[in-house]
Amino acid sequence: MRILILGGDGYLGWPTAMHFSKRGHEVHTIDNYLRRRAHREQGTDSLTPISDSLPERVAAWKDVTGLEIGVTEDNICEYEVVERIFREFRPETIIHYGEMPSAPYSHKGRDHAVFTQYNNVVGTLNVLFAIAELAPEAHLVKLGTMGEYGTPNIDIEEGYLQVDHNGRTDTLPFPKLPGSWYHLSKVHDSHNIHFACRVWGLRATDLNQGVVYGVHTEETQLDDRLLTRFDYDEVFGTALNRFCLQAVIGHPLTVYGKGGQTRGYLNIVDTIQCIELATLNPADAGEFRVFNQFTEQFSITELAETVRRAGEHHGLDVRVETVDNPRIEKEEHYYNAKHTKLLDLGLKPHLLSETLVESMFDELAKYKERVIPDRIMPSTKWKTVLEAEPAK
Amino acid sequence: MRILILGGDGYLGWPTAMHFSKRGHEVHTIDNYLRRRAHREQGTDSLTPISDSLPERVAAWKDVTGLEIGVTEDNICEYEVVERIFREFRPETIIHYGEMPSAPYSHKGRDHAVFTQYNNVVGTLNVLFAIAELAPEAHLVKLGTMGEYGTPNIDIEEGYLQVDHNGRTDTLPFPKLPGSWYHLSKVHDSHNIHFACRVWGLRATDLNQGVVYGVHTEETQLDDRLLTRFDYDEVFGTALNRFCLQAVIGHPLTVYGKGGQTRGYLNIVDTIQCIELATLNPADAGEFRVFNQFTEQFSITELAETVRRAGEHHGLDVRVETVDNPRIEKEEHYYNAKHTKLLDLGLKPHLLSETLVESMFDELAKYKERVIPDRIMPSTKWKTVLEAEPAK
Repeated sequence: MRILILGGDGYLGWPTAMHFSKRGHEVHTIDNYLRRRAHREQGTDSLTPISDSLPERVAAWKDVTGLEIGVTEDNICEYEVVERIFREFRPETIIHYGEMPSAPYSHKGRDHAVFTQYNNVVGTLNVLFAIAELAPEAHLVKLGTMGEYGTPNIDIEEGYLQVDHNGRTDTLPFPKLPGSWYHLSKVHDSHNIHFACRVWGLRATDLNQGVVYGVHTEETQLDDRLLTRFDYDEVFGTALNRFCLQAVIGHPLTVYGKGGQTRGYLNIVDTIQCIELATLNPADAGEFRVFNQFTEQFSITELAETVRRAGEHHGLDVRVETVDNPRIEKEEHYYNAKHTKLLDLGLKPHLLSETLVESMFDELAKYKERVIPDRIMPSTKWKTVLEAEPAK
Repeated sequence: MRILILGGDGYLGWPTAMHFSKRGHEVHTIDNYLRRRAHREQGTDSLTPISDSLPERVAAWKDVTGLEIGVTEDNICEYEVVERIFREFRPETIIHYGEMPSAPYSHKGRDHAVFTQYNNVVGTLNVLFAIAELAPEAHLVKLGTMGEYGTPNIDIEEGYLQVDHNGRTDTLPFPKLPGSWYHLSKVHDSHNIHFACRVWGLRATDLNQGVVYGVHTEETQLDDRLLTRFDYDEVFGTALNRFCLQAVIGHPLTVYGKGGQTRGYLNIVDTIQCIELATLNPADAGEFRVFNQFTEQFSITELAETVRRAGEHHGLDVRVETVDNPRIEKEEHYYNAKHTKLLDLGLKPHLLSETLVESMFDELAKYKERVIPDRIMPSTKWKTVLEAEPAK
């Protein structure tokens, strides 16, 4: 299958590209290095020493496996770029990781909020128009986020809700209460993609993903040059990965507020599995299919406790510290999100365990000397309106 | 009260400005003439001969009433523009009509779709950030549209739906099924504004307005120079106004498809009344209040029949013609939308009658010689992906 990967330089995009390449698919990647630039701007970096560019990565991939992966270093917000790739590569599946992925980034101020929504909404619109014009049978596999739903006081279903109201019934998009300018951009995307499926008969799968953790997939371990990035800073890092890194360097685990915030989580190897399942079992023409992509749900306090226990067993002195929550969110709430559709397609989850956390400690410890410790504590606040320094 | 009107040059914006000015409020308007430019691009124009610019309009207003209205001719997508007006005018209420208002326009192709979403989403984000930064107590009165809801098979509530699901209950945003790239932009706005109320404690009223009809308000009749625009072309015209114009010039009434499409409608004088009620009864801090702003619902066939009967009584030979529906929408469907909240605030509806339609015939007949008849039939299709000629 010809698979186009948008955001092929990212934490998940790069392992996904290698995974499909290894299994005999023709893979083309595009990335404009948005995340690498954002890191440089804020003086942070991936913990893992990743290769300098996509061309270097695919050269290493060819060196190690003999397989080719295509590269375009450009921006999907330019329609001409998307159009050219579609004409030349003729994708059958488009896996769309190509967005600004950080909630804190979008809360640095007006410029960052507007940029996030512009970048994500326009990039996705361009992809929809290119599919409709040039590849109407292609399947869009879009990365959404569980954060689109927020924390309603009812069970979260997979994309749709059957509503019984005043004696009538309909199945409608699940109501969304996103928690950041970034999460809003994903909600806007979902509405736009759903509409394109309704009016143009496109086929799309929206994967509302939980928080991903882990360092390695099968392919990233083949060679140091094939490592994927690992973010732990306050802007691009996420809860479990950051806790593991904190444990390794003797930094207190930073629990924001009361710690009752509960979310879905999954191992990076399960992300790859889910993407493959969605790709090999495409949506029907006109279908906007939504899967909740995670394997387990935990509160922040539960996660911190798991990491603390694993650290104890591993001989690390792990302290858990409560810090002021920079976000505006419920810190104690009901949370029960359904996630059966990917299991029905055959997902075999790799669940979180202290053993797994300990293996992460060992991997992360290799790069300890690369840690930039003063960018771990949260400084970006949801209350911020205008940034001290505008986005570049 | 200091009232800032975004889109003050429009069909509703201009009468709203005069209405508040007449009642002793301090009014400032801003407009970048987007609609006038779009008309010039497509070779269409307002039926009514409106003054050439906002400065001419407010000069005429001063001449007629002695009252002043402020003007800024600029674009709210530039944050510096919004910031300057907020600093200088210090608005207490912001009435936001300042968006690209046409569904067909957004379906001319990719450029127009992207422009519509960019323009509406970024303009509104700028307003939200300016309120948060410079006028946190100000009340945003935002024009949404009933089209955000689409045509679900259940009763449409005012913004929120109480959901009972698996034994638990929550009140959540009403699920949206918008029917065009334009309507999607309004859904994106609603989500963004709701979020700003949740995290920053802003106060906002989202008025999901039905289709507006009518030629005059109290103030537009004071002087020919104070007329508001009247659109009847396929891009900016809307159902009832277009039918009335068609009846007057002997053009068949163009019913799209089966004609069972049912929507909410209201008289332009009721729009002004609703805006005034929302303005004088502001939302609470942190409240995102949603009103469905219309007075009656009709199917397209019912409207055409009303105009036909009024025409018959008026001595006009009115034919009703079915044309291929350029839109993708349900042509027969359940529709029952609630609209009690503005009535509770004191709205006194001016309902549609054959007498009212006949009075519109008389008004429109005055400008018969200005009609551009070849731009009435629908040509912009929902299926269009790329435009023949890109937007300028």
